[in-house]
Amino acid sequence: MKNQFYPFIQQLQNTLTAAFEAFEGKARFEEDVWQRPEGGGGHTRVIEQGDVIEKGGVNISAVHGTLPESMQAQFKVTDADFYACGLSLVIHPKNPMAPTVHANWRYFELYNAEGEIVDQWFGGGLDLTPYYLNDKDVRHFHQVCKKVCDEHHPEYYTHFKKQCDTYFYNIHRKEARGVGGLFFDYLRQDKVFTLQNRYDFVTDVANSFLTAYLPLLLRTKDLPYTPHQREWQEIRRGRYVEFNLVHDKGTLFGLKTNGRIESILMSLPPQVQWRYDHQPEENSDEARLLTVLKNPKDWIH
Amino acid sequence: MKNQFYPFIQQLQNTLTAAFEAFEGKARFEEDVWQRPEGGGGHTRVIEQGDVIEKGGVNISAVHGTLPESMQAQFKVTDADFYACGLSLVIHPKNPMAPTVHANWRYFELYNAEGEIVDQWFGGGLDLTPYYLNDKDVRHFHQVCKKVCDEHHPEYYTHFKKQCDTYFYNIHRKEARGVGGLFFDYLRQDKVFTLQNRYDFVTDVANSFLTAYLPLLLRTKDLPYTPHQREWQEIRRGRYVEFNLVHDKGTLFGLKTNGRIESILMSLPPQVQWRYDHQPEENSDEARLLTVLKNPKDWIH
Repeated sequence: MKNQFYPFIQQLQNTLTAAFEAFEGKARFEEDVWQRPEGGGGHTRVIEQGDVIEKGGVNISAVHGTLPESMQAQFKVTDADFYACGLSLVIHPKNPMAPTVHANWRYFELYNAEGEIVDQWFGGGLDLTPYYLNDKDVRHFHQVCKKVCDEHHPEYYTHFKKQCDTYFYNIHRKEARGVGGLFFDYLRQDKVFTLQNRYDFVTDVANSFLTAYLPLLLRTKDLPYTPHQREWQEIRRGRYVEFNLVHDKGTLFGLKTNGRIESILMSLPPQVQWRYDHQPEENSDEARLLTVLKNPKDWIH
Repeated sequence: MKNQFYPFIQQLQNTLTAAFEAFEGKARFEEDVWQRPEGGGGHTRVIEQGDVIEKGGVNISAVHGTLPESMQAQFKVTDADFYACGLSLVIHPKNPMAPTVHANWRYFELYNAEGEIVDQWFGGGLDLTPYYLNDKDVRHFHQVCKKVCDEHHPEYYTHFKKQCDTYFYNIHRKEARGVGGLFFDYLRQDKVFTLQNRYDFVTDVANSFLTAYLPLLLRTKDLPYTPHQREWQEIRRGRYVEFNLVHDKGTLFGLKTNGRIESILMSLPPQVQWRYDHQPEENSDEARLLTVLKNPKDWIH
């Protein structure tokens, strides 16, 4: 399976970076190839200070070796070897009318002492973080998520949408990071699904990413905006930083296990503000965003 | 002891805010008084968008009640009542030539079921985070720290300076947050020191804060600077955010135990940048700062 999924994410990285570059007049993705001392490595592609994308990254990695101690408890094994590969992307557009987007698709294998696979699963998802709400855009994003889910199981969308709202939540602010999307993990083979079924689902989701996001970027990238709106975007980006540094399991795991820091923190926005006790004006667009983030909505029905 | 220390920090808050306001042409501290539902509360004083101080806070709080579960393990007790009071301050100057400063002085009491004190201690310190190194300034800051320490114990400075370097360390970056100062905790009464001795030490440290920091602010606040230097300050502020959100025990404790978020996150800088894999030019002032942060120096000898 790893020989099927890794080439898929390699190809996907090319497709995604090419698609984003098509929007850009001046900036281009730069690639850094890195090695992990304990086994494996990655290809980090970052774009910065573009006309459309202020900062973004589309990274792939494939790492293997002895399962780090900190993960042994989580997976309830000791002294196992592992293999993990995946693609992670974050796009922070410059225009505050354009939403930030994040996605990740990954595959994991655990081995016994004989080198046989004893466990294997897929995980990932995609989610949207707008600074100004456009209901039609959010609905489109969720409809694409739902369509690809429905092709695989009638309950997938409801289930994975809920998991996304639960996961990307700043509990210390009592608000969601954004308007969600899909989040799934530990998709194993079972009585209903083969591992190939899981692969088909995850790759279908990944292949629908551009359909979900690009129309939103296209509609918003050249919209006019005020300094006030830019400021709001930077303040909201602060909440994005708070989630990634305080709550995000992947980020914390990387930071605490000697991961490649620059590839992990690539997700942090380029320009960010923190104001003391900032409150938007009543009945403003900014206040409306907060209302929705405090009570995640059903965007389909 | 609490009836001695709390009035001290109340008075100190007035002294410190008055001293900082004396530097400011336009901005003033604004006070928020807040209540903790479980007992106690605080007075948060924040200054923003000043000519000299871009963002700063000088906060006091006194909280009490049942010891939160998350602290029971740390203090090795169950079902205890507690009292804690302290003053916390962070000053983020606007000028990148001026260092950020942080300080905290606190007192803690634990009670048994009969309401008797079973444990009590002081903690705190002060530390400096420059964006451009001025050795004379850093030496002055440390000399003031050493002088006040030496009046209480010949080994205090060496010991608490080292604890400061150890604590304010971004392990994921393998660099210190700043150039240190003093950090101490669990200063209890023992065979050598009475609790009054501990009080005298902590309040002497607190009373030396302005002597340590104000000359640095005075020297740097009006220095000319370039956009490049401002950018470096904002990038380094990103490391400050990383420390506070990923490693700082006080911040994480507050975020995870329903503390007053805005008082806790007051410490975050106002304008911050993250660049992918940013590296200063060789032999630049910026590179020299990094060298010192990677190998904490002895500033006295």
